[in-house]
Amino acid sequence: MTHLDSEVKEERLRDDLKFYFMNPCEKYRARHQIPWKLGLQILKIVMVTTQLVRFGLGNQLVVTFKEENIVSFKHLFLKGYSGVDEDDYSCSIYTEEDAYESIFFTINQYHRLKNISLAPLDYGENEEKRIGLKICKQYYKKGTTFSSNESLTIDSDVEIGCVHLDLQALLNGPEDWKQLPFFKLEFYRLLQVEISFHLKGIDLQAIQSRELPDCYVFRNKITFDNKAHSGKIKIYFDSDANIEECRALNISGSIQKNTQYVLLFDASVIAICLASLILCTRSIVLALRLRKRLENFFLEKYKRRVCDVDQWEFISGWYVLVIISDLMTIIGSILKMEITVKNLTNYDLCSILLGTSTLFVWIGVIRYLGYFQAYNVLILTMQASLPKVLRFCACAGMIYLGYTFCGWIVLGPYHEKYPGFPLKCCFFP
Amino acid sequence: MTHLDSEVKEERLRDDLKFYFMNPCEKYRARHQIPWKLGLQILKIVMVTTQLVRFGLGNQLVVTFKEENIVSFKHLFLKGYSGVDEDDYSCSIYTEEDAYESIFFTINQYHRLKNISLAPLDYGENEEKRIGLKICKQYYKKGTTFSSNESLTIDSDVEIGCVHLDLQALLNGPEDWKQLPFFKLEFYRLLQVEISFHLKGIDLQAIQSRELPDCYVFRNKITFDNKAHSGKIKIYFDSDANIEECRALNISGSIQKNTQYVLLFDASVIAICLASLILCTRSIVLALRLRKRLENFFLEKYKRRVCDVDQWEFISGWYVLVIISDLMTIIGSILKMEITVKNLTNYDLCSILLGTSTLFVWIGVIRYLGYFQAYNVLILTMQASLPKVLRFCACAGMIYLGYTFCGWIVLGPYHEKYPGFPLKCCFFP
Amino acid sequence: MTHLDSEVKEERLRDDLKFYFMNPCEKYRARHQIPWKLGLQILKIVMVTTQLVRFGLGNQLVVTFKEENIVSFKHLFLKGYSGVDEDDYSCSIYTEEDAYESIFFTINQYHRLKNISLAPLDYGENEEKRIGLKICKQYYKKGTTFSSNESLTIDSDVEIGCVHLDLQALLNGPEDWKQLPFFKLEFYRLLQVEISFHLKGIDLQAIQSRELPDCYVFRNKITFDNKAHSGKIKIYFDSDANIEECRALNISGSIQKNTQYVLLFDASVIAICLASLILCTRSIVLALRLRKRLENFFLEKYKRRVCDVDQWEFISGWYVLVIISDLMTIIGSILKMEITVKNLTNYDLCSILLGTSTLFVWIGVIRYLGYFQAYNVLILTMQASLPKVLRFCACAGMIYLGYTFCGWIVLGPYHEKYPGFPLKCCFFP
Amino acid sequence: MTHLDSEVKEERLRDDLKFYFMNPCEKYRARHQIPWKLGLQILKIVMVTTQLVRFGLGNQLVVTFKEENIVSFKHLFLKGYSGVDEDDYSCSIYTEEDAYESIFFTINQYHRLKNISLAPLDYGENEEKRIGLKICKQYYKKGTTFSSNESLTIDSDVEIGCVHLDLQALLNGPEDWKQLPFFKLEFYRLLQVEISFHLKGIDLQAIQSRELPDCYVFRNKITFDNKAHSGKIKIYFDSDANIEECRALNISGSIQKNTQYVLLFDASVIAICLASLILCTRSIVLALRLRKRLENFFLEKYKRRVCDVDQWEFISGWYVLVIISDLMTIIGSILKMEITVKNLTNYDLCSILLGTSTLFVWIGVIRYLGYFQAYNVLILTMQASLPKVLRFCACAGMIYLGYTFCGWIVLGPYHEKYPGFPLKCCFFP
Repeated sequence: MTHLDSEVKEERLRDDLKFYFMNPCEKYRARHQIPWKLGLQILKIVMVTTQLVRFGLGNQLVVTFKEENIVSFKHLFLKGYSGVDEDDYSCSIYTEEDAYESIFFTINQYHRLKNISLAPLDYGENEEKRIGLKICKQYYKKGTTFSSNESLTIDSDVEIGCVHLDLQALLNGPEDWKQLPFFKLEFYRLLQVEISFHLKGIDLQAIQSRELPDCYVFRNKITFDNKAHSGKIKIYFDSDANIEECRALNISGSIQKNTQYVLLFDASVIAICLASLILCTRSIVLALRLRKRLENFFLEKYKRRVCDVDQWEFISGWYVLVIISDLMTIIGSILKMEITVKNLTNYDLCSILLGTSTLFVWIGVIRYLGYFQAYNVLILTMQASLPKVLRFCACAGMIYLGYTFCGWIVLGPYHEKYPGFPLKCCFFP
Repeated sequence: MTHLDSEVKEERLRDDLKFYFMNPCEKYRARHQIPWKLGLQILKIVMVTTQLVRFGLGNQLVVTFKEENIVSFKHLFLKGYSGVDEDDYSCSIYTEEDAYESIFFTINQYHRLKNISLAPLDYGENEEKRIGLKICKQYYKKGTTFSSNESLTIDSDVEIGCVHLDLQALLNGPEDWKQLPFFKLEFYRLLQVEISFHLKGIDLQAIQSRELPDCYVFRNKITFDNKAHSGKIKIYFDSDANIEECRALNISGSIQKNTQYVLLFDASVIAICLASLILCTRSIVLALRLRKRLENFFLEKYKRRVCDVDQWEFISGWYVLVIISDLMTIIGSILKMEITVKNLTNYDLCSILLGTSTLFVWIGVIRYLGYFQAYNVLILTMQASLPKVLRFCACAGMIYLGYTFCGWIVLGPYHEKYPGFPLKCCFFP
Repeated sequence: MTHLDSEVKEERLRDDLKFYFMNPCEKYRARHQIPWKLGLQILKIVMVTTQLVRFGLGNQLVVTFKEENIVSFKHLFLKGYSGVDEDDYSCSIYTEEDAYESIFFTINQYHRLKNISLAPLDYGENEEKRIGLKICKQYYKKGTTFSSNESLTIDSDVEIGCVHLDLQALLNGPEDWKQLPFFKLEFYRLLQVEISFHLKGIDLQAIQSRELPDCYVFRNKITFDNKAHSGKIKIYFDSDANIEECRALNISGSIQKNTQYVLLFDASVIAICLASLILCTRSIVLALRLRKRLENFFLEKYKRRVCDVDQWEFISGWYVLVIISDLMTIIGSILKMEITVKNLTNYDLCSILLGTSTLFVWIGVIRYLGYFQAYNVLILTMQASLPKVLRFCACAGMIYLGYTFCGWIVLGPYHEKYPGFPLKCCFFP
Repeated sequence: MTHLDSEVKEERLRDDLKFYFMNPCEKYRARHQIPWKLGLQILKIVMVTTQLVRFGLGNQLVVTFKEENIVSFKHLFLKGYSGVDEDDYSCSIYTEEDAYESIFFTINQYHRLKNISLAPLDYGENEEKRIGLKICKQYYKKGTTFSSNESLTIDSDVEIGCVHLDLQALLNGPEDWKQLPFFKLEFYRLLQVEISFHLKGIDLQAIQSRELPDCYVFRNKITFDNKAHSGKIKIYFDSDANIEECRALNISGSIQKNTQYVLLFDASVIAICLASLILCTRSIVLALRLRKRLENFFLEKYKRRVCDVDQWEFISGWYVLVIISDLMTIIGSILKMEITVKNLTNYDLCSILLGTSTLFVWIGVIRYLGYFQAYNVLILTMQASLPKVLRFCACAGMIYLGYTFCGWIVLGPYHEKYPGFPLKCCFFP
């Protein structure tokens, strides 16, 4: 009787195991089990991709707005800006006259800003709560000029001197500031001049897509870099754009209508991901329970443990992938909803979460391709030949590394086409 | 007797079938049947290609004329146009002064047009039957300026205001129009300014090739786009060129001589295509009749139907291809004749019909290559390996799609080289 | 006896045949025959290549001189020339004012030429033996202007009007010529304006390499092309440089020293080629005689003819190649000597002869590679697979041709990247 | 007894030989010998690479400084320099006026240098111990101008005339020098004008990295090249920068602190390389001793010599490589230390030594990869197929050479895209 019972138990376990390793199609044929999980995954792919594309398009508007503002600033504040950056700096100057003119041009453009700018810009307060320009210069502490009879005397300690040009003073008075002793630059000991100022902007474009506009603070910094003392001053323009709360903004007219639909869509994405999360967790739990039964059966019948490799067969990597992807989508969607209602402005984290989760969802599609016989063979062949390929790559890489190091040192300086640093051409060819 | 009769019938059917599946060379050897269809196809290829090349060369003249006119307009009406478009817009401006100057430059150039243009241009009437410029601006309904103490008040509803500058007023009076309140642009609430005007041109080049010239109406529209409010106004130049009847054109001298030869050639192409159409239709009809005989024979002798695959062998895909190609050539040639005598100006439809039909005719040449043994093997091998390749592509495509979506969202905004939308780099790399 | 005699004869024939098909190495081992031909070929390669390189370097100086002169002319005579040609024309203009200014600029620069040019240029006589500018315009016979109320009247016949501005008149008087009715251009019926003038130059650079300098006549023609009547006048600059005898040239100092060495070298190349020519001809004659003996032997013994394929084995393609190459080198070298002593200026024919012959000489080297076993296998394998590859290419080419024809007509006009004519992208990708 | 002794000896020799051909891993298992050499090599790779990267970064600063100075000079001294070199020359001029202006511009900029330059430059003494400009012109000895009636008379001998413009004269007086007869250039017989001057500079940037700055002498030479007499004068700018002792330099403040750490690091690299050198030499000595024993054994037992190939197995190529690399590193490091303390400025030799040695060290890593079975197979396969590939390349190269020679001569002059010299496109594609 126990024997028979054991036989029945064994038969049932065998059936359950066979069923466990079936694909959705076979499961449906075997027990008429409808593949809910498969359907849910397909629905999820569609919704997650739609959400990502919509978010991406919105995000791109934000980025484009920032970039276009920076291009405008370069045209407004840099004298002789050609529209294209040279190398990593925006432009370069070679004579003392140009240096003074470029600096004074920036200052003058700043105080005329309201009359020349096409964007709805406003002066912003800087870190010290003052509205105006902050101009700093770095220079070697002291030194006497370098003439044919005299020697050059330099104190290697670096000093920093700053001057604040308040907007009010610029707007009222004449160009008195040009007479400041600060603007007497001794280029042979000057390291760099930094002009920094804050501007406030508003992304009015959002109004057209029926959304509340974001307000921006642009922390601009123009650097005249003379550190190399090679006769060429490089002008850098850095702009750090931050989204801030729009305090004194007053928008009338028909706005803020489709926000709720967006929120609803995001909520439904969360719901689907939750469902998928629960189903996959359940599958893993069931699989672990089946493994437990198998282990017990082995202990009972053969008095030995199931081998490790077989045990791992029960924890499906695909389910783990789906679970991670679902968790990321849920967190990302919540973040996105917060961004939509303007509680947060953390676009970057949100885009990383949503982007990575979508990547995982699409990779998950490969699992279903594994059910096709022909494709499976392909994957197995690739797996087998991988180690050899990797080993060969490692070796080639080693010679290449040696070669680039050598080439960089020996050829680099005399051949301008040779890249600055060899690793650069390894990883970013 | 019936048996013998049936045997004779069977023998004859077998002969006919064997003959049906022969290639032209074997047919000639077997029954000395001269391959008329083959000869006709070769003649057709030559004639259709000649027709296409001639039509293409003529078509290109038309397109070049339109393009050169548009380039000329950009040089005439856009201030500081460099000769090369930036991105999808023609040029861009960054200061209020430039904006006003660009707009006024366009207006001034328009009224001086007769004195500066090198082309035989004339002012055209716009949709409202007026000759002159129509300038429209879009702006947010109301708003007060954005100053440090004040708040920004914007009504999100968009209004459009237009002004007509009649040519007569421009030619007679001084530059009074500059004082119009319309030209007081408040850039912080301005969305865009559109200047539109119509010009009439004539493609005199056609006279030299002894053809009647086409008359054109250019619907030009210059758009100063400030929708982004980023401090950068993009200037778009759109020109819509339509061929219209030349009413008041008076051409004397020796013209319109070779049109009849062109028409004659087109007519002979139509004749050949008709012949080819008839021969191919006849072949299909004969093939269907042969199939009927075969079916009857099978029913009589073996009491069963011919299997589906064998039935399809009788409808040659090549003949269908030739028939479609012939029909398209005939319609295209009739269109081309109408265009030649200036009854129609529908170049686009005509070029699609003629182009596609020529493509089909050339593809038809492969059929004759199939008669070579070696080549046939190649085709069969390719057919066999196709499904695996397709399946692999599908999988790789899926991963690639996921990767591009993810990359676009995560990397896109911070890396200017990354393409705007991933699908763009899938399909138009 | 006859039998024995015949056997001896057969033995000798067999020996001679075996020897004939040996390679130089084996020949040396068999009969200690020193491979004169091989040595001669190696010597020839060295000398012919040296000669070609020397000639090429000299030729390049000539071409560079012509090109630099043309670039200089463009900078001198074309207003606003940027240094780089647009498309196939040099620059383009868009307004009537620019057109007049460009034409007048050219005329003024011509008469100031002696004061501005850096090269030792002189005015040359044109075809009509006059020194000065010849300005021609093509225009439609008559026509009235194109105004909003009026119709356009054009006579399609083309007239040409010319005016000569003699240098003397230009140098003496004021700018009276600007008032000429000729310079009243009616652009709506103007087809093109051509300004042509001749200049004399001298390639003084040759003096430095101790050679006699060449004198040049530059036939310059500036074309203002308005044939398209699209509002864009394209300016073409054509310069036809011819080497002519330097009549009034007087060079003192130490010159013309190394010409004799060059001539000596060329003569020795001719001598070597003659030797090679004679040896190869002798080899062919001997081979033919051997073939004759073989034929006779076959007729005698087996009463049948040697089959055709075997007969052709005796006429070595390599010898034919060497003979052709030698003949070309000899003719080319004679031409080169004539050029060196300035009797001829036919650089082009000479470079084609010498270049092609050198190509043949180098290809001849492959023959000696055929003696290596491994390489021979490679060649045979390639020969075997050639027909299949060719057939495949033919088919692919056919589809490609159809595709490009279709694409050109259907896509071409609307996509500026698509090449002007499909065959262009087939053969010059 | 001797037999037994001999057997023991044989056994020991066999053991030693087996041990000798083991890899480090097996050696450790066999005799628990810790792989010191392997550890030392790994440490060496890390240290040598670190040293090279540090040296390379420092070297790059030097090169960048030189290059930026040259760019600055071009902007200061060349009129109308666009920022990008045309071809191998910097800019080009086409009229006499431009030629004079360019020369005078350079002279004026030189005497205003102190007021315009942004770099701490000083005038330097030239070879003749004078401070100022040296202007030389080359011209044909005599000649009369080339006019329509007259002949051109040229003496082919070249004369050189120079003039010194002392700085003091330039600074004090008016522009009298423009009236010098020297500046009456007769362009038809002018070959070239050379303006040369010396400038002193100082690489102050080094102060920031707490090092003593280098002093530079820039030997600048501006060449106006009219040798071609084609109407285009090419302007070359050559600058020869030499590091010299800073005589009158006086640097106070906190400097020269981290030099000792650099020296310490270099010393430890030398120590490690010495250790590696000694270990490898010892290994080779031991191997040679083992070979001696083997030879003796063979002579004793089999009365014959060991075959040559087997003998070479004992001299490991890897050890030789390591020894060469070590020697180079040691010499390079000593040089580097001298450079650090400013006794030497021989950057080039040092970078070649260090670079090549690092390349060898990295190539040495392949040796350890040879211990993996799979990789070994790969290497053996490649070795086997090498000769065939080489032979094929030789043949293809021969045809290609012939082709390029021919193409260069025949096509070159008429097709500007064809490279100047065929070998250029062979070796530097």
